[in-house]
Amino acid sequence: MKTKQIEKKKSVLRIQSEIRKVLGEELRKKDFIEISPVILSPITDPLNHPTAPARIDCYGNEYSVTQSMIFHKQLALRTLDKIFVFSPNVRLEPSGRKETGRHLFEFTQLDLEVKDATREQVMELCEDIFIELIKSIKKECDKELKVLDRKLKVPKKPFKKIKYEEAYQKYGERFEDIISKIHDEPIWLIDIPLKSREFYDKEDPEHPGILRDMDLIYPEGYGEALSGGEREYEFERIKTRIHKKGQTLEQFKDYIKLAKNGLLPSAGFGIGIERLTRYICGLKTIDEASLFPKIPGKKCI
Amino acid sequence: MKTKQIEKKKSVLRIQSEIRKVLGEELRKKDFIEISPVILSPITDPLNHPTAPARIDCYGNEYSVTQSMIFHKQLALRTLDKIFVFSPNVRLEPSGRKETGRHLFEFTQLDLEVKDATREQVMELCEDIFIELIKSIKKECDKELKVLDRKLKVPKKPFKKIKYEEAYQKYGERFEDIISKIHDEPIWLIDIPLKSREFYDKEDPEHPGILRDMDLIYPEGYGEALSGGEREYEFERIKTRIHKKGQTLEQFKDYIKLAKNGLLPSAGFGIGIERLTRYICGLKTIDEASLFPKIPGKKCI
Repeated sequence: MKTKQIEKKKSVLRIQSEIRKVLGEELRKKDFIEISPVILSPITDPLNHPTAPARIDCYGNEYSVTQSMIFHKQLALRTLDKIFVFSPNVRLEPSGRKETGRHLFEFTQLDLEVKDATREQVMELCEDIFIELIKSIKKECDKELKVLDRKLKVPKKPFKKIKYEEAYQKYGERFEDIISKIHDEPIWLIDIPLKSREFYDKEDPEHPGILRDMDLIYPEGYGEALSGGEREYEFERIKTRIHKKGQTLEQFKDYIKLAKNGLLPSAGFGIGIERLTRYICGLKTIDEASLFPKIPGKKCI
Repeated sequence: MKTKQIEKKKSVLRIQSEIRKVLGEELRKKDFIEISPVILSPITDPLNHPTAPARIDCYGNEYSVTQSMIFHKQLALRTLDKIFVFSPNVRLEPSGRKETGRHLFEFTQLDLEVKDATREQVMELCEDIFIELIKSIKKECDKELKVLDRKLKVPKKPFKKIKYEEAYQKYGERFEDIISKIHDEPIWLIDIPLKSREFYDKEDPEHPGILRDMDLIYPEGYGEALSGGEREYEFERIKTRIHKKGQTLEQFKDYIKLAKNGLLPSAGFGIGIERLTRYICGLKTIDEASLFPKIPGKKCI
């Protein structure tokens, strides 16, 4: 690499290290406990879009590499009230997704979950942390932002909210890209329909077919930042929702066994560290936000 | 779980969260940059003892689940001078190792590496961090230590050192267990012979057959804490060492390609977070130090 390129990469990595630091500090201030990531398990997030399976035989049992720690977060709340984890996720996305500039087949998300919380409470928590993060990066990484020629604006809370159906009607199928491009502060996308999400996102009892969940969308065209919401936790509801998705209890038998013993109401979200780094640093593509980027379809160290 | 058991587990997890916090803070104070973990790669630590392979096909290429990030740490030093990472490792240990009380088939290690450093420098770094950690846990987790009925002693630096050959002659084959049991402060085991380690540990030019490396051993019978040392970084030396181990360049071809482009001199170590938690909390077995313990040979969530 040339000197200028190395200086740029160093700045990105210093900012990413600072992002991890500030997010951890802010959550600890709010009494969150950091738990360890889970890499292999018989249960993992089924996701709502097709990824190739990443499975391994461990002592005669089939394990998946974690796609997200959603089920483990629910289980952790049996012991702790507020948890977070820097969780590496592997998602073997279709090769074509390398063109989006937003997908890696391995990345880390800051995943958190709060017992007895509502969607609105974790949205406010997210806004508070996000604002503190931007303030802190502007202050502590001033030199690095200059190297990257990046100017950051501290957003005001509450962030703007737009309902999925309204967004779809107003902007059509590519509404997410459009919403991202026309705004200069993060925007919440809320009330996502059941068919677009996984069975564990809680259905709104007052609006069947609509979920108590949300995405955060970055401004300036950087696209989706995070996904989250309230969770289904009652065994009968989980069963119903699995069937509504055309899935079977057998597919999730190890989770079902645990869910039968009782889960607890909660809300949470997961925010991708590389996407956050890309946004904060103003990078063209997500591979620039990683020291060892895993580009879909390519052989990567 | 009964109330008392839950209270104990909560205390362990709060202490583990504090361990992560303090280790990160201490390293940042010393200008370390936190990098992201790597989970899948065509290259990973071969280790010096047999583990079952954990491999996955990604887009037609064979990837291993990380056994340790040693090679990625060496590569990272091309861009950064001092790095650390909370790195999840998967090591499919023989089932019998569940009996040791010290082995999990998935765990996290704090892995760090310093450009141009000597073994003695990273040993002193480790002592400083370790002492700060114990002080901090005694102060911040006083309540949790009481629940666990654990009394901790702040060790004095420098820690005692013993050479591998001397230890072997004095205590016989099980010297590590014996050294651990008869001491009440951590002890360094140094100058480990070439045959007991991997090819990437640097051979002492003044003592052929002996490595510039070390293990730290916990007192009170808790056994091995960490491994580390200086690294081989010159291409010709790497080739020689691979052949000395009876391994082939073909086995490590993706690493060899990168090593040919030039690696840099460095030293570092990796310390297991669950073993550290076990020691600090005074737990009987390592599964008590994890929310989702992966016990060799068992099916674990």
